[in-house]
Amino acid sequence: MKFTVTGTDGAARAGWLDTAHGQVATPVFMPVGTAGAVKAMTADAVRATGAGIILGNTYHLMLRPGAARVAALGGLHRFMDWPGPILTDSGGFQVMSLAKLRRLDAHGVTFQSHIDGSSHRLTPESSTEIQWALDATITMAFDECTPFPATEAEAAASMRLSMAWAARSRAAFVPRAGYGQFGIVQGSVFPALRAESAAALLDIGFEGYAIGGLAVGEGQEAMLTTLRHTANLLPANAPRYLMGVGTPSDILGAVELGVDMFDCVMPTRAGRTGRAYVPAGHLNLRNAAHAQDPAPLQAGCACPACARHSRAYLHHLFKADEMLGPMLLTWHNLTYYQSLMQGLREAIITGNLTTHAANLRSAWRTNNDPD
Amino acid sequence: MKFTVTGTDGAARAGWLDTAHGQVATPVFMPVGTAGAVKAMTADAVRATGAGIILGNTYHLMLRPGAARVAALGGLHRFMDWPGPILTDSGGFQVMSLAKLRRLDAHGVTFQSHIDGSSHRLTPESSTEIQWALDATITMAFDECTPFPATEAEAAASMRLSMAWAARSRAAFVPRAGYGQFGIVQGSVFPALRAESAAALLDIGFEGYAIGGLAVGEGQEAMLTTLRHTANLLPANAPRYLMGVGTPSDILGAVELGVDMFDCVMPTRAGRTGRAYVPAGHLNLRNAAHAQDPAPLQAGCACPACARHSRAYLHHLFKADEMLGPMLLTWHNLTYYQSLMQGLREAIITGNLTTHAANLRSAWRTNNDPD
Repeated sequence: MKFTVTGTDGAARAGWLDTAHGQVATPVFMPVGTAGAVKAMTADAVRATGAGIILGNTYHLMLRPGAARVAALGGLHRFMDWPGPILTDSGGFQVMSLAKLRRLDAHGVTFQSHIDGSSHRLTPESSTEIQWALDATITMAFDECTPFPATEAEAAASMRLSMAWAARSRAAFVPRAGYGQFGIVQGSVFPALRAESAAALLDIGFEGYAIGGLAVGEGQEAMLTTLRHTANLLPANAPRYLMGVGTPSDILGAVELGVDMFDCVMPTRAGRTGRAYVPAGHLNLRNAAHAQDPAPLQAGCACPACARHSRAYLHHLFKADEMLGPMLLTWHNLTYYQSLMQGLREAIITGNLTTHAANLRSAWRTNNDPD
Repeated sequence: MKFTVTGTDGAARAGWLDTAHGQVATPVFMPVGTAGAVKAMTADAVRATGAGIILGNTYHLMLRPGAARVAALGGLHRFMDWPGPILTDSGGFQVMSLAKLRRLDAHGVTFQSHIDGSSHRLTPESSTEIQWALDATITMAFDECTPFPATEAEAAASMRLSMAWAARSRAAFVPRAGYGQFGIVQGSVFPALRAESAAALLDIGFEGYAIGGLAVGEGQEAMLTTLRHTANLLPANAPRYLMGVGTPSDILGAVELGVDMFDCVMPTRAGRTGRAYVPAGHLNLRNAAHAQDPAPLQAGCACPACARHSRAYLHHLFKADEMLGPMLLTWHNLTYYQSLMQGLREAIITGNLTTHAANLRSAWRTNNDPD
């Protein structure tokens, strides 16, 4: 796996990530395909939005259909018809947020499935093996996402456990050409802990570095402050991935600080509830204001929701509980996110990020319902 | 609107229906787009299945979003991105099956919406006007679908009411080039009543003739017996449409008797529940037998469910309640139905319908779970 920075503007970088499953331009947004599918989207539709890399969830896939079954069926790429790169999370975050009867020990986590109550165990080794069986292009180190808020002592203990697990995850990782593994910086909002965590990961050595434990309730200002500090601790020649982020505004702020990769359920989840991301922010298509509006959701957008239909039609689909409403709006939101990233890449390469960012923020300020 | 028979094989006919919104080859299956959308399908996906004409529901659309709103937004074709021909039913059937507090009188039906309890009235005149406002390529006469079973006296009274309404529907119809209106033969399973109904409709004169009140519980044998009798009463140079039918086996039997047009929710509804139509009949993808099966749902089928995925993946999507399961299986089932019709058209034109029908029935007999 090779990462090449091709342009910078301030701390922001544009580049290419070359993998065994193809090349992606950064900064990049990865749509979330939790259980082997990006919700409400065919793989062809995901490709049509401009997405080049997607995310899969180790926790969900190990429980159903099971990593061995996915492997027997040719791996996750073949299974879900996504020949491009796939990043899988380690399962650590979902175990703590979804599983029942979790018991954390120094070696790993024992938990009950939220689906059928069956008992399972995840360790740095088993998480890494599962991601190998899934054929993840990018494997994430198994960690504990430190809850927020946490005292500095709690955050330190949690981070140090994650760093021990990071070393074990790395030891369990089988290197393959064009594949890679990312370590995850923890340490909550405490600069000294973030520095200790980054140093520990650099000492182990990974193909990329993720920043975890943010966008968990600390607010955008605290997130960006921690990010500014943390991004500077990471090597310039490796990709930086801010996990689970975020709103367009969060992504812009993080790109300005030198982050290269993002994932978030926001555009897909919002699409299923009638919420559309547009250049002026977002709007709720269930709102009666759209009932008779013949205008497209976003003029100039090439997605089928915008190119083929009116806001009135999308409003109707949500009022009538037609599955096509979530389908079209998910498609639009992912298209919007990809177009946001494309605009950021172009602005960085042409040295216009400051102006471009000001224009984006100015348009968002006109939004009646800010995020 | 022009109908041209280009080939016959026994009583079966192949032809072309030329409309203001394009030409369709018959025998034809019309996917059902009840509320302005074919469920779980984009309009592009419906086109990709090979469908050339779809059906819309007057009852649903008059209640939500309302015919005037659809008209203000450019008509149903523009609203749902279907520039091709659209046939709308008259609302009569849905009022009797879905609405609350129905009160039938000689002039029409008063009812309460199943959505919000609001009061509405449908008459031959208002149904025809609503279909005009929707911009239906083919308007259906407003009728009462005679319940089954019915005594001969009940069936006669119901049919004669429908014939009076047919004359009023025709009087309310505004002829336009490439548009047409179909009358509906009623009379339950009573040959004399079917004959009286057909004669009444021919006397009024329509661009096409539908056969109603079948596939309502009488069984395939009684349906085909009534159909054999009724099809012979209808002019050879006008299209014949069997409403709400049916299984692949029902369609084959009806095509053999000279029926040209069909609609049914079966392929779309079945797709949402995990049931797939295949040359050997159908199968339930929720069944554990498919959990590890790397084979495509139907070898050689070009739909994305078959061309891109395994039965194991489709099984997984249904077990995981992923919306993509219904999406892919609806796409497949509509593709199967269109391919069934294409095979029938070719067999009629080449004079091979007897052999083709025997082959289809022989394959269906191998099905473990016949319909």
